[in-house]
Amino acid sequence: MTLRSMQELLSDFAEHREWEQFHTPKNLAMALTGEAGELAAEFQWLTPEQSADVMADPRHARAVRHEMADVLSYLLRLADVLDVDLEQALREKVDLNALKYPGRT
Amino acid sequence: MTLRSMQELLSDFAEHREWEQFHTPKNLAMALTGEAGELAAEFQWLTPEQSADVMADPRHARAVRHEMADVLSYLLRLADVLDVDLEQALREKVDLNALKYPGRT
Amino acid sequence: MTLRSMQELLSDFAEHREWEQFHTPKNLAMALTGEAGELAAEFQWLTPEQSADVMADPRHARAVRHEMADVLSYLLRLADVLDVDLEQALREKVDLNALKYPGRT
Amino acid sequence: MTLRSMQELLSDFAEHREWEQFHTPKNLAMALTGEAGELAAEFQWLTPEQSADVMADPRHARAVRHEMADVLSYLLRLADVLDVDLEQALREKVDLNALKYPGRT
Repeated sequence: MTLRSMQELLSDFAEHREWEQFHTPKNLAMALTGEAGELAAEFQWLTPEQSADVMADPRHARAVRHEMADVLSYLLRLADVLDVDLEQALREKVDLNALKYPGRT
Repeated sequence: MTLRSMQELLSDFAEHREWEQFHTPKNLAMALTGEAGELAAEFQWLTPEQSADVMADPRHARAVRHEMADVLSYLLRLADVLDVDLEQALREKVDLNALKYPGRT
Repeated sequence: MTLRSMQELLSDFAEHREWEQFHTPKNLAMALTGEAGELAAEFQWLTPEQSADVMADPRHARAVRHEMADVLSYLLRLADVLDVDLEQALREKVDLNALKYPGRT
Repeated sequence: MTLRSMQELLSDFAEHREWEQFHTPKNLAMALTGEAGELAAEFQWLTPEQSADVMADPRHARAVRHEMADVLSYLLRLADVLDVDLEQALREKVDLNALKYPGRT
Protein backbone atom coordinates (compact mmCIF):
# COMPACT_ATOMS: atom_id res chain seq x y z
CA MET A 1 0.00 0.00 0.00
CA THR A 2 1.52 3.31 -1.05
CA LEU A 3 1.35 6.52 0.95
CA ARG A 4 -0.99 7.87 -1.73
CA SER A 5 -3.45 4.99 -1.34
CA MET A 6 -3.36 5.41 2.45
CA GLN A 7 -4.16 9.10 1.91
CA GLU A 8 -7.13 8.14 -0.26
CA LEU A 9 -8.41 5.70 2.34
CA LEU A 10 -8.30 8.44 4.99
CA SER A 11 -9.71 11.07 2.67
CA ASP A 12 -12.71 8.83 1.88
CA PHE A 13 -13.13 8.12 5.59
CA ALA A 14 -13.23 11.85 6.38
CA GLU A 15 -15.56 12.61 3.47
CA HIS A 16 -18.08 9.95 4.54
CA ARG A 17 -18.27 11.56 7.96
CA GLU A 18 -18.35 15.15 6.67
CA TRP A 19 -15.18 15.87 8.59
CA GLU A 20 -13.53 17.78 5.75
CA GLN A 21 -14.80 21.07 7.14
CA PHE A 22 -12.66 20.46 10.25
CA HIS A 23 -9.59 19.29 8.36
CA THR A 24 -7.92 22.64 7.70
CA PRO A 25 -4.12 22.44 7.60
CA LYS A 26 -3.98 24.34 10.88
CA ASN A 27 -6.39 21.99 12.66
CA LEU A 28 -4.60 18.89 11.35
CA ALA A 29 -1.19 20.19 12.43
CA MET A 30 -2.68 20.86 15.87
CA ALA A 31 -4.26 17.41 16.07
CA LEU A 32 -0.91 15.90 15.11
CA THR A 33 0.78 17.51 18.13
CA GLY A 34 -1.94 16.05 20.34
CA GLU A 35 -1.34 12.54 19.02
CA ALA A 36 2.45 12.95 19.22
CA GLY A 37 1.94 13.95 22.86
CA GLU A 38 -0.16 10.86 23.54
CA LEU A 39 2.51 8.68 21.92
CA ALA A 40 5.19 10.34 24.07
CA ALA A 41 3.03 9.73 27.15
CA GLU A 42 3.41 5.97 26.59
CA PHE A 43 7.16 6.35 27.17
CA GLN A 44 7.47 9.25 29.60
CA TRP A 45 8.18 7.39 32.85
CA LEU A 46 10.17 4.52 31.32
CA THR A 47 13.92 4.07 31.55
CA PRO A 48 15.71 3.76 28.18
CA GLU A 49 15.86 -0.02 28.78
CA GLN A 50 12.16 -0.28 29.61
CA SER A 51 11.33 1.79 26.52
CA ALA A 52 13.23 -0.73 24.34
CA ASP A 53 11.08 -3.51 25.77
CA VAL A 54 7.72 -1.76 25.51
CA MET A 55 6.28 -4.15 22.92
CA ALA A 56 6.66 -7.18 25.22
CA ASP A 57 3.49 -6.15 27.07
CA PRO A 58 0.48 -6.71 24.75
CA ARG A 59 -1.64 -3.92 26.22
CA HIS A 60 1.17 -1.39 26.03
CA ALA A 61 2.17 -2.60 22.55
CA ARG A 62 -1.38 -2.08 21.31
CA ALA A 63 -1.52 1.46 22.72
CA VAL A 64 1.83 2.34 21.11
CA ARG A 65 0.75 0.95 17.72
CA HIS A 66 -2.53 2.84 17.80
CA GLU A 67 -0.91 6.13 18.80
CA MET A 68 1.60 5.68 15.96
CA ALA A 69 -1.28 5.06 13.56
CA ASP A 70 -2.96 8.26 14.80
CA VAL A 71 0.18 10.31 14.17
CA LEU A 72 0.51 8.79 10.70
CA SER A 73 -3.17 9.44 9.94
CA TYR A 74 -3.00 13.14 10.66
CA LEU A 75 0.30 13.47 8.81
CA LEU A 76 -1.25 11.79 5.75
CA ARG A 77 -4.39 13.94 5.97
CA LEU A 78 -2.21 17.06 6.16
CA ALA A 79 -0.17 15.89 3.15
CA ASP A 80 -3.44 15.35 1.31
CA VAL A 81 -5.02 18.74 1.99
CA LEU A 82 -1.72 20.58 1.29
CA ASP A 83 -0.93 18.40 -1.74
CA VAL A 84 2.51 17.55 -0.36
CA ASP A 85 4.36 14.54 -1.79
CA LEU A 86 5.62 13.04 1.46
CA GLU A 87 7.97 10.59 -0.20
CA GLN A 88 9.66 13.36 -2.18
CA ALA A 89 9.80 15.59 0.91
CA LEU A 90 11.47 12.76 2.83
CA ARG A 91 14.08 12.24 0.10
CA GLU A 92 14.81 15.97 -0.04
CA LYS A 93 15.27 16.13 3.72
CA VAL A 94 17.51 13.04 3.75
CA ASP A 95 19.69 14.65 1.03
CA LEU A 96 19.92 17.88 3.03
CA ASN A 97 20.83 15.95 6.18
CA ALA A 98 23.48 14.01 4.28
CA LEU A 99 25.21 17.31 3.50
CA LYS A 100 24.72 18.61 7.04
CA TYR A 101 25.87 15.43 8.77
CA PRO A 102 28.39 13.64 6.52
CA GLY A 103 28.61 9.96 7.51
CA ARG A 104 31.51 7.58 7.27
CA THR A 105 32.06 6.11 3.80
CA MET B 1 8.74 3.53 -2.39
CA THR B 2 7.15 1.52 0.41
CA LEU B 3 7.18 2.49 4.07
CA ARG B 4 9.56 -0.43 4.63
CA SER B 5 12.07 0.86 2.09
CA MET B 6 11.87 4.36 3.61
CA GLN B 7 12.58 2.76 6.99
CA GLU B 8 15.66 1.04 5.53
CA LEU B 9 16.92 4.29 4.00
CA LEU B 10 16.65 6.00 7.40
CA SER B 11 18.08 3.04 9.26
CA ASP B 12 21.16 3.03 7.01
CA PHE B 13 21.48 6.78 7.42
CA ALA B 14 21.47 6.44 11.22
CA GLU B 15 23.88 3.50 11.16
CA HIS B 16 26.43 5.37 9.03
CA ARG B 17 26.46 8.17 11.59
CA GLU B 18 26.50 5.87 14.63
CA TRP B 19 23.23 7.42 15.78
CA GLU B 20 21.65 4.09 16.70
CA GLN B 21 22.78 4.47 20.31
CA PHE B 22 20.55 7.57 20.57
CA HIS B 23 17.57 6.03 18.79
CA THR B 24 15.85 4.38 21.74
CA PRO B 25 12.05 4.26 21.41
CA LYS B 26 11.77 6.83 24.19
CA ASN B 27 14.17 9.27 22.54
CA LEU B 28 12.51 8.88 19.14
CA ALA B 29 9.04 9.47 20.60
CA MET B 30 10.39 12.58 22.30
CA ALA B 31 12.06 13.82 19.10
CA LEU B 32 8.78 13.29 17.27
CA THR B 33 6.95 15.65 19.65
CA GLY B 34 9.63 18.27 18.99
CA GLU B 35 9.16 18.02 15.24
CA ALA B 36 5.36 18.02 15.56
CA GLY B 37 5.73 21.20 17.61
CA GLU B 38 7.88 22.81 14.90
CA LEU B 39 5.30 21.85 12.28
CA ALA B 40 2.53 23.35 14.42
CA ALA B 41 4.59 26.53 14.80
CA GLU B 42 4.32 27.09 11.04
CA PHE B 43 0.54 27.45 11.46
CA GLN B 44 0.08 28.90 14.92
CA TRP B 45 -0.70 32.53 14.09
CA LEU B 46 -2.57 31.88 10.84
CA THR B 47 -6.32 32.14 10.37
CA PRO B 48 -7.97 28.96 9.02
CA GLU B 49 -8.07 30.64 5.58
CA GLN B 50 -4.39 31.61 5.68
CA SER B 51 -3.51 28.07 6.76
CA ALA B 52 -5.28 26.67 3.68
CA ASP B 53 -3.11 28.91 1.50
CA VAL B 54 0.22 28.24 3.20
CA MET B 55 1.80 26.49 0.19
CA ALA B 56 1.41 29.58 -2.01
CA ASP B 57 4.49 31.12 -0.39
CA PRO B 58 7.59 29.13 -1.53
CA ARG B 59 9.60 29.76 1.65
CA HIS B 60 6.73 28.76 3.92
CA ALA B 61 5.89 25.77 1.70
CA ARG B 62 9.46 24.52 1.94
CA ALA B 63 9.47 24.83 5.74
CA VAL B 64 6.16 22.94 6.01
CA ARG B 65 7.37 20.15 3.71
CA HIS B 66 10.60 19.75 5.64
CA GLU B 67 8.88 19.69 9.03
CA MET B 68 6.47 17.07 7.69
CA ALA B 69 9.45 15.02 6.48
CA ASP B 70 11.02 15.30 9.94
CA VAL B 71 7.84 14.02 11.63
CA LEU B 72 7.65 11.14 9.14
CA SER B 73 11.34 10.30 9.65
CA TYR B 74 11.05 9.89 13.40
CA LEU B 75 7.81 7.95 13.06
CA LEU B 76 9.49 5.56 10.60
CA ARG B 77 12.58 5.20 12.81
CA LEU B 78 10.31 4.42 15.77
CA ALA B 79 8.41 1.84 13.73
CA ASP B 80 11.74 0.31 12.76
CA VAL B 81 13.21 0.00 16.26
CA LEU B 82 9.90 -1.28 17.70
CA ASP B 83 9.25 -3.56 14.70
CA VAL B 84 5.79 -2.06 14.18
CA ASP B 85 4.07 -2.57 10.83
CA LEU B 86 2.74 0.95 10.31
CA GLU B 87 0.50 0.03 7.40
CA GLN B 88 -1.19 -2.73 9.41
CA ALA B 89 -1.48 -0.43 12.45
CA LEU B 90 -3.15 2.21 10.28
CA ARG B 91 -5.65 -0.31 8.87
CA GLU B 92 -6.47 -1.56 12.37
CA LYS B 93 -7.04 1.96 13.62
CA VAL B 94 -9.21 2.84 10.61
CA ASP B 95 -11.33 -0.27 11.27
CA LEU B 96 -11.71 0.69 14.93
CA ASN B 97 -12.65 4.24 13.99
CA ALA B 98 -15.21 2.94 11.49
CA LEU B 99 -16.99 1.18 14.37
CA LYS B 100 -16.64 4.19 16.66
CA TYR B 101 -17.77 6.76 14.10
CA PRO B 102 -20.16 5.09 11.65
CA GLY B 103 -20.31 7.10 8.41
CA ARG B 104 -23.15 7.50 5.97
CA THR B 105 -23.55 4.63 3.53
CA MET C 1 0.78 31.80 46.59
CA THR C 2 4.20 32.25 45.00
CA LEU C 3 5.65 30.01 42.32
CA ARG C 4 8.12 28.76 44.95
CA SER C 5 5.36 27.68 47.31
CA MET C 6 3.54 25.94 44.45
CA GLN C 7 6.79 24.12 43.68
CA GLU C 8 7.03 23.00 47.32
CA LEU C 9 3.44 21.76 47.31
CA LEU C 10 4.15 19.65 44.21
CA SER C 11 7.53 18.49 45.50
CA ASP C 12 5.92 17.25 48.73
CA PHE C 13 3.18 15.57 46.72
CA ALA C 14 5.76 13.70 44.61
CA GLU C 15 7.86 12.77 47.65
CA HIS C 16 4.89 11.28 49.51
CA ARG C 17 4.21 9.01 46.52
CA GLU C 18 7.88 8.13 45.92
CA TRP C 19 7.60 9.62 42.44
CA GLU C 20 10.92 11.48 42.66
CA GLN C 21 12.71 8.57 40.98
CA PHE C 22 10.59 9.20 37.85
CA HIS C 23 10.96 12.98 37.90
CA THR C 24 14.21 13.33 35.96
CA PRO C 25 14.39 16.54 33.91
CA LYS C 26 14.07 14.50 30.73
CA ASN C 27 10.94 12.68 31.91
CA LEU C 28 9.32 15.88 33.15
CA ALA C 29 10.02 17.69 29.85
CA MET C 30 8.48 14.74 28.03
CA ALA C 31 5.42 14.68 30.31
CA LEU C 32 5.00 18.41 29.71
CA THR C 33 4.70 17.85 25.93
CA GLY C 34 2.02 15.23 26.60
CA GLU C 35 -0.03 17.63 28.71
CA ALA C 36 0.48 20.47 26.21
CA GLY C 37 -0.84 18.11 23.54
CA GLU C 38 -3.91 17.29 25.63
CA LEU C 39 -4.55 20.99 26.16
CA ALA C 40 -4.22 21.60 22.40
CA ALA C 41 -6.67 18.75 21.78
CA GLU C 42 -9.36 20.74 23.59
CA PHE C 43 -9.11 23.39 20.87
CA GLN C 44 -8.13 21.48 17.74
CA TRP C 45 -11.45 21.36 15.89
CA LEU C 46 -12.75 24.75 17.05
CA THR C 47 -12.95 27.88 14.92
CA PRO C 48 -11.13 30.91 16.37
CA GLU C 49 -14.53 32.23 17.51
CA GLN C 50 -15.52 28.95 19.18
CA SER C 51 -12.12 28.83 20.90
CA ALA C 52 -12.77 32.28 22.41
CA ASP C 53 -16.03 30.99 23.87
CA VAL C 54 -14.72 27.69 25.23
CA MET C 55 -15.27 28.57 28.89
CA ALA C 56 -19.03 29.04 28.38
CA ASP C 57 -19.51 25.26 28.49
CA PRO C 58 -18.86 24.06 32.07
CA ARG C 59 -17.59 20.61 31.05
CA HIS C 60 -15.21 22.01 28.48
CA ALA C 61 -14.11 24.78 30.84
CA ARG C 62 -13.25 22.24 33.50
CA ALA C 63 -11.19 20.15 31.06
CA VAL C 64 -9.28 23.24 29.88
CA ARG C 65 -8.56 24.37 33.44
CA HIS C 66 -7.32 20.94 34.45
CA GLU C 67 -5.08 20.56 31.40
CA MET C 68 -3.63 24.00 32.11
CA ALA C 69 -2.98 22.94 35.71
CA ASP C 70 -1.21 19.81 34.43
CA VAL C 71 1.07 21.85 32.16
CA LEU C 72 1.85 24.21 35.04
CA SER C 73 2.52 21.30 37.40
CA TYR C 74 5.15 19.71 35.19
CA LEU C 75 6.74 23.07 34.43
CA LEU C 76 6.99 23.77 38.17
CA ARG C 77 8.38 20.30 38.89
CA LEU C 78 10.98 20.80 36.15
CA ALA C 79 11.93 24.21 37.58
CA ASP C 80 12.29 22.56 40.96
CA VAL C 81 14.54 19.68 39.92
CA LEU C 82 16.68 21.96 37.72
CA ASP C 83 16.72 24.77 40.31
CA VAL C 84 15.48 27.29 37.74
CA ASP C 85 14.00 30.57 38.99
CA LEU C 86 11.00 30.77 36.65
CA GLU C 87 10.14 34.36 37.53
CA GLN C 88 13.67 35.52 36.72
CA ALA C 89 13.72 33.43 33.52
CA LEU C 90 10.44 35.05 32.45
CA ARG C 91 11.78 38.57 33.09
CA GLU C 92 14.95 37.78 31.14
CA LYS C 93 12.96 36.46 28.20
CA VAL C 94 10.61 39.47 28.24
CA ASP C 95 13.63 41.81 28.18
CA LEU C 96 15.13 39.90 25.24
CA ASN C 97 11.82 39.99 23.39
CA ALA C 98 11.52 43.73 24.03
CA LEU C 99 14.81 44.20 22.14
CA LYS C 100 13.80 41.77 19.40
CA TYR C 101 10.30 43.16 18.92
CA PRO C 102 10.31 46.87 19.79
CA GLY C 103 6.76 48.03 20.56
CA ARG C 104 5.20 51.42 20.12
CA THR C 105 6.07 53.93 22.85
CA MET D 1 5.74 38.61 41.67
CA THR D 2 2.34 36.90 41.53
CA LEU D 3 1.03 34.96 38.55
CA ARG D 4 -1.49 37.78 38.05
CA SER D 5 1.22 40.44 37.81
CA MET D 6 3.17 38.25 35.36
CA GLN D 7 -0.01 37.99 33.30
CA GLU D 8 -0.33 41.79 33.30
CA LEU D 9 3.29 42.22 32.22
CA LEU D 10 2.70 39.87 29.27
CA SER D 11 -0.68 41.36 28.44
CA ASP D 12 0.85 44.87 28.25
CA PHE D 13 3.68 43.50 26.14
CA ALA D 14 1.23 41.98 23.66
CA GLU D 15 -0.95 45.09 23.60
CA HIS D 16 1.99 47.39 22.80
CA ARG D 17 2.80 45.21 19.79
CA GLU D 18 -0.82 44.80 18.65
CA TRP D 19 -0.47 41.05 19.06
CA GLU D 20 -3.83 40.64 20.79
CA GLN D 21 -5.51 39.85 17.47
CA PHE D 22 -3.30 36.73 17.22
CA HIS D 23 -3.75 35.66 20.83
CA THR D 24 -6.93 33.61 20.49
CA PRO D 25 -7.12 30.69 22.95
CA LYS D 26 -6.65 28.28 20.08
CA ASN D 27 -3.53 30.00 18.77
CA LEU D 28 -2.01 30.29 22.25
CA ALA D 29 -2.64 26.58 22.98
CA MET D 30 -0.98 25.76 19.68
CA ALA D 31 2.00 28.03 20.38
CA LEU D 32 2.36 26.35 23.77
CA THR D 33 2.79 22.93 22.15
CA GLY D 34 5.50 24.39 19.92
CA GLU D 35 7.43 25.75 22.91
CA ALA D 36 6.93 22.50 24.86
CA GLY D 37 8.39 20.70 21.85
CA GLU D 38 11.41 23.01 21.78
CA LEU D 39 11.94 22.42 25.50
CA ALA D 40 11.73 18.65 24.97
CA ALA D 41 14.26 18.95 22.13
CA GLU D 42 16.85 20.15 24.66
CA PHE D 43 16.61 16.76 26.38
CA GLN D 44 15.76 14.32 23.60
CA TRP D 45 19.14 12.66 23.05
CA LEU D 46 20.33 12.79 26.68
CA THR D 47 20.53 9.84 29.04
CA PRO D 48 18.60 10.30 32.31
CA GLU D 49 21.93 11.08 34.01
CA GLN D 50 22.94 13.66 31.41
CA SER D 51 19.50 15.25 31.69
CA ALA D 52 20.02 15.70 35.44
CA ASP D 53 23.26 17.56 34.73
CA VAL D 54 21.99 19.78 31.94
CA MET D 55 22.40 23.03 33.87
CA ALA D 56 26.16 22.50 34.28
CA ASP D 57 26.73 23.74 30.73
CA PRO D 58 25.99 27.51 30.60
CA ARG D 59 24.84 27.53 26.97
CA HIS D 60 22.50 24.59 27.47
CA ALA D 61 21.27 26.00 30.79
CA ARG D 62 20.39 29.28 29.12
CA ALA D 63 18.46 27.52 26.35
CA VAL D 64 16.51 25.44 28.89
CA ARG D 65 15.65 28.48 31.00
CA HIS D 66 14.45 30.43 27.98
CA GLU D 67 12.33 27.58 26.65
CA MET D 68 10.77 27.19 30.10
CA ALA D 69 10.03 30.93 30.13
CA ASP D 70 8.38 30.60 26.71
CA VAL D 71 6.13 27.77 27.92
CA LEU D 72 5.20 29.81 30.99
CA SER D 73 4.51 32.92 28.89
CA TYR D 74 1.99 31.21 26.64
CA LEU D 75 0.36 29.46 29.57
CA LEU D 76 -0.04 32.81 31.35
CA ARG D 77 -1.37 34.50 28.20
CA LEU D 78 -3.88 31.68 27.79
CA ALA D 79 -4.95 32.01 31.43
CA ASP D 80 -5.38 35.72 30.84
CA VAL D 81 -7.52 35.52 27.72
CA LEU D 82 -9.66 32.70 29.18
CA ASP D 83 -9.83 34.35 32.61
CA VAL D 84 -8.58 31.17 34.31
CA ASP D 85 -7.22 31.43 37.84
CA LEU D 86 -4.15 29.21 37.44
CA GLU D 87 -3.41 29.01 41.15
CA GLN D 88 -6.93 27.80 41.92
CA ALA D 89 -6.83 25.37 38.99
CA LEU D 90 -3.56 23.95 40.32
CA ARG D 91 -5.00 23.49 43.82
CA GLU D 92 -8.09 21.78 42.41
CA LYS D 93 -5.98 19.41 40.33
CA VAL D 94 -3.70 18.61 43.28
CA ASP D 95 -6.77 17.81 45.40
CA LEU D 96 -8.13 15.53 42.67
CA ASN D 97 -4.78 13.80 42.32
CA ALA D 98 -4.59 13.31 46.09
CA LEU D 99 -7.82 11.28 45.89
CA LYS D 100 -6.66 9.41 42.79
CA TYR D 101 -3.19 8.62 44.09
CA PRO D 102 -3.33 8.38 47.89
CA GLY D 103 0.17 8.85 49.34
CA ARG D 104 1.66 7.44 52.51
CA THR D 105 0.63 9.26 55.68
